Formats: sequence, C-alpha cells, structure tokens
Amino acid sequence: MIRVGIVGATGYTGVELMRILSVHPEVELCAITSRQEVGQPVSALFPNLRKHVDLTFQSPDQADLTQCDAVFFATPHAAAMHAVPELLDAGVRVIDISADYRLKDAEVWAQWYGEPHASPALLAEAVYGLPEVNRESIRSARLLACPGCYPTAIQLGFLPLLEAGVVDVGRLIADAKSGVSGAGKALKPGSLFVEASDNFKAYAIAGHRHLPEIREGLADAAGQAVGLTFVPHLVPMIRGIEATLYAELTDPDCDLQALFELRYKAEPFVDVMPTGSHPETHSVRGGNTCRLAVHRLDEGAAVPRVVVSSVIDNLVKGASGQAVQCFNLMFGFDEATALHAPALYP
Amino acid sequence: MIRVGIVGATGYTGVELMRILSVHPEVELCAITSRQEVGQPVSALFPNLRKHVDLTFQSPDQADLTQCDAVFFATPHAAAMHAVPELLDAGVRVIDISADYRLKDAEVWAQWYGEPHASPALLAEAVYGLPEVNRESIRSARLLACPGCYPTAIQLGFLPLLEAGVVDVGRLIADAKSGVSGAGKALKPGSLFVEASDNFKAYAIAGHRHLPEIREGLADAAGQAVGLTFVPHLVPMIRGIEATLYAELTDPDCDLQALFELRYKAEPFVDVMPTGSHPETHSVRGGNTCRLAVHRLDEGAAVPRVVVSSVIDNLVKGASGQAVQCFNLMFGFDEATALHAPALYP
Amino acid sequence: MIRVGIVGATGYTGVELMRILSVHPEVELCAITSRQEVGQPVSALFPNLRKHVDLTFQSPDQADLTQCDAVFFATPHAAAMHAVPELLDAGVRVIDISADYRLKDAEVWAQWYGEPHASPALLAEAVYGLPEVNRESIRSARLLACPGCYPTAIQLGFLPLLEAGVVDVGRLIADAKSGVSGAGKALKPGSLFVEASDNFKAYAIAGHRHLPEIREGLADAAGQAVGLTFVPHLVPMIRGIEATLYAELTDPDCDLQALFELRYKAEPFVDVMPTGSHPETHSVRGGNTCRLAVHRLDEGAAVPRVVVSSVIDNLVKGASGQAVQCFNLMFGFDEATALHAPALYP
Amino acid sequence: MIRVGIVGATGYTGVELMRILSVHPEVELCAITSRQEVGQPVSALFPNLRKHVDLTFQSPDQADLTQCDAVFFATPHAAAMHAVPELLDAGVRVIDISADYRLKDAEVWAQWYGEPHASPALLAEAVYGLPEVNRESIRSARLLACPGCYPTAIQLGFLPLLEAGVVDVGRLIADAKSGVSGAGKALKPGSLFVEASDNFKAYAIAGHRHLPEIREGLADAAGQAVGLTFVPHLVPMIRGIEATLYAELTDPDCDLQALFELRYKAEPFVDVMPTGSHPETHSVRGGNTCRLAVHRLDEGAAVPRVVVSSVIDNLVKGASGQAVQCFNLMFGFDEATALHAPALYP
Repeated sequence: MIRVGIVGATGYTGVELMRILSVHPEVELCAITSRQEVGQPVSALFPNLRKHVDLTFQSPDQADLTQCDAVFFATPHAAAMHAVPELLDAGVRVIDISADYRLKDAEVWAQWYGEPHASPALLAEAVYGLPEVNRESIRSARLLACPGCYPTAIQLGFLPLLEAGVVDVGRLIADAKSGVSGAGKALKPGSLFVEASDNFKAYAIAGHRHLPEIREGLADAAGQAVGLTFVPHLVPMIRGIEATLYAELTDPDCDLQALFELRYKAEPFVDVMPTGSHPETHSVRGGNTCRLAVHRLDEGAAVPRVVVSSVIDNLVKGASGQAVQCFNLMFGFDEATALHAPALYP
Repeated sequence: MIRVGIVGATGYTGVELMRILSVHPEVELCAITSRQEVGQPVSALFPNLRKHVDLTFQSPDQADLTQCDAVFFATPHAAAMHAVPELLDAGVRVIDISADYRLKDAEVWAQWYGEPHASPALLAEAVYGLPEVNRESIRSARLLACPGCYPTAIQLGFLPLLEAGVVDVGRLIADAKSGVSGAGKALKPGSLFVEASDNFKAYAIAGHRHLPEIREGLADAAGQAVGLTFVPHLVPMIRGIEATLYAELTDPDCDLQALFELRYKAEPFVDVMPTGSHPETHSVRGGNTCRLAVHRLDEGAAVPRVVVSSVIDNLVKGASGQAVQCFNLMFGFDEATALHAPALYP
Repeated sequence: MIRVGIVGATGYTGVELMRILSVHPEVELCAITSRQEVGQPVSALFPNLRKHVDLTFQSPDQADLTQCDAVFFATPHAAAMHAVPELLDAGVRVIDISADYRLKDAEVWAQWYGEPHASPALLAEAVYGLPEVNRESIRSARLLACPGCYPTAIQLGFLPLLEAGVVDVGRLIADAKSGVSGAGKALKPGSLFVEASDNFKAYAIAGHRHLPEIREGLADAAGQAVGLTFVPHLVPMIRGIEATLYAELTDPDCDLQALFELRYKAEPFVDVMPTGSHPETHSVRGGNTCRLAVHRLDEGAAVPRVVVSSVIDNLVKGASGQAVQCFNLMFGFDEATALHAPALYP
Repeated sequence: MIRVGIVGATGYTGVELMRILSVHPEVELCAITSRQEVGQPVSALFPNLRKHVDLTFQSPDQADLTQCDAVFFATPHAAAMHAVPELLDAGVRVIDISADYRLKDAEVWAQWYGEPHASPALLAEAVYGLPEVNRESIRSARLLACPGCYPTAIQLGFLPLLEAGVVDVGRLIADAKSGVSGAGKALKPGSLFVEASDNFKAYAIAGHRHLPEIREGLADAAGQAVGLTFVPHLVPMIRGIEATLYAELTDPDCDLQALFELRYKAEPFVDVMPTGSHPETHSVRGGNTCRLAVHRLDEGAAVPRVVVSSVIDNLVKGASGQAVQCFNLMFGFDEATALHAPALYP
C-alpha cells in the first residue's frame, strides 16, 4: 500500500482526489491537511465521503507528511512552492495539482501570479503531467506538475495537428467554456448560483493565467512558437470543459480523422469520436476521458479550416483524475486504476 | 461470471444499470435489448459507455435471454409482465425495475395502470426488493420487484417510526421532490429544459401511481392500515429525491435519534446523519445511499411532531443501484459489489 | 411625481425595486444609498439598468433622504430600525422590505434576530403590507412593514380556509420551497452555484425566522392561535417560491374552489386556478401574482384533507413588487401601476 | 389602435410576442391562430398570460386575418411563405419571425431548408428587419423578414468592423452559444432537461441554417464576400445568446472602442460597454438590448486581433422583441414602445 497525504483538501480538487483515491486498492490515505478546518472530520465537510473517508483534517504541522510515500497538493497557487522542497528532501514524491510548477520560466510565473516563485530551482525538474505527451518522464518523476483544466482540453485537441505540422501555427484560436467548479470554492460574487445560473459570459479576454502554460505546451508540440488567441467562458454547469479549436489547414490533403485516431490509438483516456460527432461534456462527467471530434470545413473560405471540439471533466482529466493517472504511472500501477468507471450520465 | 441480460435498456434506468454493471467483477453483460434501437451500438446512444460496453442493441427475439442467468427489466410498466413467465420457466432469475410486480393486488394494479395485469399469478411470489426489509427473502427470490423511487425514500424514512409504533399512523404526510430524470426519457413537454429549468411545481396532487405501493409498505411496517397524504414535486435537477416526512409523535419520550441509528446500524446503504442535520441530494448523486435526518419539533403544537428528511439518488438507490444490491444478494456476492464508490460531489 | 429614495440597494430586493420603479410613470428616483458602493454608478453594479437608472450610489449621509416623499429600505434586518424614526419625523413615508417591523412583539423580534429592537415603539404603528388583508390601513400608513417571501405565499394560501373556519387550526403544515435568490446576495458557501445547483435540501427544520411572522398572520385570520409546522427547502432556481399547504377539513361540505374564488375575486394579484391545477413558479417569474390551486383529498384518511399549492416570485410579490403595490396604495395610484407586465415565461 | 394577428402562437416566439404586445398601448390583439390548439384559451397553454390575454386559439381559417392591420408569423419555417401572399394582397402588413424571407436567393433557401420556396417573388421585396441597418426601409415595408437570433448577435458585433474596413474579411470566426429556447418547443431528445442541463456541446459544426443569412448580412456590410467560420453551441440556460467574434485587424491604428461607440451612438437597443467589459446574457434577459464589448489583443500574434463579445436575449432582440421594434417603426410609433422595461436580473 502506498501511503498518501493530501494538502489543502477542502477545495473541489481535494474532495475529488479523496473520492477517487478512496476506491484505489493500493492507496492508504494517511493525512489530509487544511489550515481552516483543523479537527473537523473530513466527512462533516463532505457528506458524500461519510463511511468512505474516516480521517480528520490536520494542520500541515500536525500531519507528518514526510512519512508519506506520495503527497498531493490541492492548494491554491503559491502554496505548494513553499512546502515542496522539504518533502522532496525527505524522499516523498510530490504531485502538485496547483499551478506552481507548470511553467518552466520563473519570470513568466511571477508575471502571471503576481509574486516571485519560492522554489524556482525545481521548475526545471518538475515533469508536466500530461501522460499523452510525457508518459515516460512521469514514471520516474519526483515532482509532478499537473496541467490546468483548460490546458488539458486545449492541448489534447491541438496536439495531433501541431505534431503533424498540418496547420498554420500563427493563427490558432481556442474558444473554451468551463463549468463553475473551475472557479473553485472561493466565495466570489460571480460564483453564486443566482449570478452564474441561467447566464453565460466570456471572461478574462485580455489574458487568462492558463495562457502561458498552453502556449508552452503547444510550442513544444509544434517545435516553434505559436500564435494563440484563447478566450474562456463561464457555463452554468457544475463540471465540464468544452474547447472549440480553430486552425487553418496548410496541408489540404491531410486525413484529419485518421491523424487523430492514430495519434490517440493507444491512449486509455483519449477517445476520438467518429467523423461528424459533437462531444458533450456530460459524456465525461466524473470520468477521466478526454473526448474529441475533428471537423474539416471547406466551404466559403480561402483555405480549408479545421475545427476540433474537445471535452473533459475539469475536476477529473482536468485535475484530480489526471493526477491519479500520473500517480499510477509513478508507482507502477495500471494507469487506469481507480479511474475506470464510466462517466455519470445522465 | 453471471450472465446478465437487460431488457429495454434505452431509458435512464437502463443506462444506469449498464454503468453500474460494467464495473461489476462477477458480471458478464450478454444481451441488451431494445425494440427501437436494434442494430445500434449501445455506445452510439450513450457515449459515456464508449470503451465500457461493446454490445449492440438486439430485438428481444434475437437475444436469447433464456441463456442468461439473470435478466433485468428496465422497461416502462406493462412490458415485463408479458415476458417474465417464460424466463422464469427457463430458470432465469428476473429483477424487474418497472412497476409490474410491486403490488400484491392485481385489482389495485389494474386500477392505477389502466389495464389488467398479464401475469397476476406471479404477484404473490414476487419479492419486494427493499433489502432493509426483505433481505432474506431477496436472497432466494426467483422474481424480484424493485421498489419505486419515491417509495424507497419514503419507506426508509418512515420505517423506524412505524415499526416502533411511536407515531399516529392515520396522519402521515410525505412531501416529496424529484429530479427530472424521474420522469424518464419520454418526450413530454414538461420534461423539456425550457419548461423544467428555473421552475418548481407540485404535480399529481390528486393521486400518484406510487401511492398504493407506499401505503402497502407502510402498512406492513405498522401492522395496520395507514392514512397517508403524498404530494410529489418536480425539481430542476437531473437526479435526486428528497422526501420531507411529517408525523405526530404518540410516544413523547421516544429518543428518535437513537431509534433511527439502531434501526439502520447494520445497513450498508442507509446513513443516519447526526441530530440537526439536513441531508442534500448531491451527497448521494450517483451513489446507492439513502441519507436520513430526523428532527423533533415541540414548539407551538399540541403534540410533538417528527420531521424526517430522506434523500436518495432516484436512479441508483431508487432504481438501478438497488436492483444491483438485490442482484448481489440473490447471487451470493457482497451486497455492495459495484456499489461502493462515493457519490459524485460536486 | 413622487420623490423616492432606496436605502441599501445593492441586494436583490434593491435591484428589483429599481427595475420596477424605473418604469413607474409617477416616480422620480432621487437617491440610492449603499455604504460599500459609494461613488459607483448603479449601472456598473447592475448592467441590466444601464440606460435605465443614471444614479450613483451615495452614502446614507450624503443622500438627504428627508427630502424624499417615500423611502424604501432594502437592507438586511436590523438596519432600518435605526434610521426609520428620523425619516418619519421628517414626514417621509417609509416602506421597509426588511424584517424590522413585521412582528408586533419586540421580545419575539429580539429572540429571533438576536439583538434588541432599536425602535420598538414603532412596531404598533407599522402596517403589515399584505394588501389582501390590510388594504385600507396601507393607504394611510406612515410606516409599512412588507411581508417576507415565505409568509406571503403561505398566508395567501391558508387565509380563505382560516377565515372561513373550515380546517383544524392546530394541525397546519407548510412545506415551502424557495429559489436561491431568497438567500440574498451574501457570500455563503451554500449559495454557490456548485453547491446549490443540481441539488435539493430542507433547511432550518428546527425553526426559521419567518415562522413567528407566519404564525401571527395565520392567528389573526383564524381568530385564535394556530399550530403550524413550517419546513423551508432550497430549490436550484433563481426566483420563485412554492408552498404546499396541508390541513384537515373540519367542514366536509365546504366547496373549496368556490371559497377560494370568492375570497380573491377582486384581488388584482391573486389568481385562483381551475380545479385540478398545479401552479408553476415560472408562471409568475418577474410578475406580482400569487397563483393558487386548492385540492381536496378524500381517499384513505379518516377526515378529508385539503392541499393548497401557492406560488409567487419571491423578489416580486414576496418583496419588491408587493412593496410597490403598497406604495401605489399609499400614494393613491392604481394599485397595479408598474406591475402589470405578464411574467417572463419561458 | 392597430389590429394585430399572430399566426402559430404556440411556440416560444409566439408567447413572447403576446407577452410584449399585451402591454403595447397601441395594439389590439385580434386573432391568435394555431392548428393544434383550436378552441383552447391562450392562457390555458400559457398561464403567465392569465388575466393578460383573453383570446382563444383559432384555426387559420376561422380567424379572418385579412381584417388585421398587421400579422406576425411565429411559425416554423416553410409555413409563412404559403400564407403571406394572400395577406399582402389584402393590404395587411406582415412581420415574419420565421426564416422564410430572410435570404435573397431562392436557390440558397431551397438548399438549406430542403424544399422549394413557395413565394420566391417576394424575396426581393422583403425587408430584412435589422433596424440598425435598415431602419428607413423598415418604416415603409409591407413584408418584413425578421433576422434570426444568431444572425442578430453576430451581425451587430461585426458590423462596425466591416463597415469601417479594418479587419481581414476572409478570416472571420463566430463562436456562438445559445440557450435552449433557441431550439424551440419541439419535442427533441436533446432539448430534454436531463440531456441539456449540466451539459455543454457544440453542434452543427458542418453548417447551420443561419450561416447563409449571416454571410449575406456581413457581405453587405463589407461590400464584398466574407470568409466566415460559424460554430453554434448549446448552453444550459433558457434564454440568451453570446457570440464571441474573432477577426484580424488590418488597420492597427484603429480605435476600436471609439469606432463601436460612434456606430451605435443613436441606437436605442445597442449598448456598447466600457473598455475591458464582459457582457453577460442575464443582463439582457427579457430585454431588447444587444450588449457589446470589444477587446484588442496584441500579445503574441503576428497581427493584432480583435475579439468582440455580443449578447442578446434570443427571444427578444433575437426574435419577438426585434419584431415589435420593427412593427413600431412600420406604424410610426416610438421605436421602444412596449420594449423599454429593463432586463429581468437576477
């Protein structure tokens, strides 16, 4: 049994981690920390975990996380970067769901997150936890940086096109839409039911924190810098991200369907739908799958265009599920352990 | 491996059965039938089952259901009653999620469902599939009649009070609220998003088809006829039932919390919350748990009253999950097999 | 033109007041106050009022409310009671949408709101703003206490029965359900979209602040104390209240439909639906109507029972619309001025 | 008073027309037709219109529509085109909310709607009812073709850019999202609450019927053919459309904010928000406003890009409200008559 700790488990990625790990046959949950909820049973805050998780929230000091084999950080950004070095020194392997180790450049990180990075030396070592790109490095990683939710949906949708070099990399557009759990559990007016329900809006058009991470990942795939416009939107649903991706085809002979199917043939958690499909977020609700469809549009434009629609559950493949997928790789388990249940539809 | 067939698997209880059974380690899904969808892959209709269920819908004639060890009926009412006798004769054990075998009296059935019962001789044999009441008879049942969704939530809430004889059985009120999946997948105007969303209403105040079933179960528990007023309501949510139950306490010294905890102490799927709690339907979303809280109100009334709030997922503990719980009992498996995942919150 | 001020107009009843009053032909909005938003244009906080309300939030000190003819208080409880005496002294007529003057007994008020009442001497003078009961006193009121949302829906549903003396007043039950705007704009976890959406729960079973107000109103109608059990619930919708009311009929010959139709015959904002109807909250969304249906249940109980379903928009007939209805009465306008638009369906 | 008839008033645009026209001081509703609902009171189908509309549905034959001054068609496509010629001959002015007269080319119409046009000779005469473009022609129109919902939101967002010639017209992208009422009241599985709620998807990526109409309008504004990619999406909300529009700026010195403000300065129903804003659909719920924000993105792309976010209520500015706006122009009333109420927020 792997001894696992979770830091900051009061948010949505934290409770989702516990939901998934509580049925993992090789995991023993040892410590769940939260500064605000010290002494509270986990199940008092999350009644869905009654009879499933018997632990009590501890302060990070009470919990001796160095006794764990693996520690997940489900904290807001700028927390993990202070605590991770000590854990690594103690031989603990760390899986960070927050944004702290996703970028390679500490300057860029500081610019988007508004403070200097506290452990910049680890940025180079941290492995970006997208198994579809970095499976082998993930297996041996000490420090894993889990991708953001938008970056997962968008990168998996663009990757086959960029790796194959069949689109104009200077003209990529990602119009993405997220359920409200993507905003976390913070008490913000825009997250109130009365504000978010029966409503739709774009936000952060001028620039969203996930933008540099996406650009970095796409540039790696393309082998060159990319020009990307990324606009996120808020959807009145709990979970789910849909990204509609636009590009101009530079290779008009490319068989897009075959390209996508081949690229993701061996992937347990990427599902390329048949030609003409429109993936729906409820088909991945609670599941770790990224479901994709690719469309080619020839009519009425100078060059043929490609439109990809990519859906994930932002809390699973976009956060905690992908973290467990990486954890499984890191500890030599079947990659799908604790992740094989179908999505909850309806 | 138990060979399992599902009849009428295009509705919500059918797809939910497949979601649950696809991760059951002792089940082999052999045949999925539907008259309308013959030849369609199951996963074309239900993309959440892509990579999980590889079967194709067959007509009931193509599928030789007599080769199955167990057959689930997820049909509308008045279908199972025609097909079940032949299967029983062939030695197949039948679990009927529809309403066909829930009542003991064929006359009452005919009155509420508008046609004569086609196999009334089986009504006496059919075991009512509420494990909290009939666990032992379920183990040996050939024909299992799964309880309705409202009846499950309401009976589990009233049972401890009635069995202990501490309330006025002539004055029971059940004010129940259901998510829209309770109405099934039929194309009814009131089930449209635009009609049901951002809306709330009572319906069937004059009498709902679940009323006789609930009365029968409550009378069994009370050992006498009961006076019950039952009003269902439609809630703009996908899954979930909450029943608020009202009764007048005839034994003012009764320790209600202790009564409920004792009654359900050994039950794997009934969770009595601490005094003062208010169960929420999202705490059981996708899970097989019935979560209860009991409140005593003394103020301002001639006699003390008891209010119970009971929540279930109508498609799981209120239908397909309870059916699998019974199946596990019938075939000697751990009662919770394939049912132990926590609810999907948020 | 009547010069009108609004105190505390940043909450949902405040913005709703402005929505309604901005089309009132006899009203000039003079001052909108808010301590937190001083200097902000009203329309920056509420873009739906762009081009409709050109005012800027002022502090209560900047705005000389004594220059107004009428002032509405859309504040949380325990604010109006401090400011009202001075305004009344200055000859301003006050319409309080908050809870400060709804109860007649200062002790009871203090018990439910947790602090002593600041102007108890005014409780006797304050007129309870339910036009269907107090129309004439409203016309001449200096200080108007607008009813709460639950109390409006519940009283209008029970009134005909209690006034006619045809039910057992010791056994009244009100099972009420509210949209999330009833909880106001405060940043509470339970009001987040992710918590409230796709969810349903009872709350405050042990006692809700509206209980004494409802009891007081029902006792006035019955001419004696009443025994009432009241359980509120939270519905995943923005606006709307439905109350399902239960009573036992003591006069079995009573023609309930005729009783209700007669009682509300002349009421512009109470709509008794035909026998057998089920009112839906979306049929009153944004409108000032209370829509009712009354059902008699004879089957299976010792005495016949009556079930009333009553729906209102909690922000209109349950708050700001009813306040404007009273304002119209107070200033001699047609009672329906600014309130005659149909509900927004769908 | 203008005598008005409505054909096909059982759908969402029909009931919305009645909601708006019932408060229009210069309109007398004379005839409401529906083939399926003959003899039914309008208010039995639409309880929100109880006490507001006293008419009964008539068959188109019973209702002598030639006695009306104006007739609105709120029918599915391919109905108005058969009935309109006779009405025009009788001197009735027609406002068609359906798609029948929106395109100028009968061939294109036939291609997208799957049957030949029944009165192609009228296509040239029909005036496209976008007041922001065709105000003067609308005043004198006999036959008015109301724009579709997507076309209204998208054209109003692109118009200033195309008229000013500051973007690359070959590379326009419109990523649009609609509430479910846009799919009408037809009983389609995808419109069920259980399917559409807590879900998001793109649809009709290969081509949506509104595409030729949008292209035609944009080409008129640009003075040349445009290259447009248009992808619609379904949002779990009742009303509302948001369109996020992407273009490449060919005039990098253009002051976009000034351009938009100038273009719409005199428009009563287009609201250009301040720089940096993100319009929300709930800010126009039930109102006739199109609310816009324009953003310029310079970072990381070869050429600066412009992103416009445009929101409307699909049933008001996207259908019935715009129809009444045109009606007001046609009959010489103030353009905003019956349309000046603020949106229903929250």
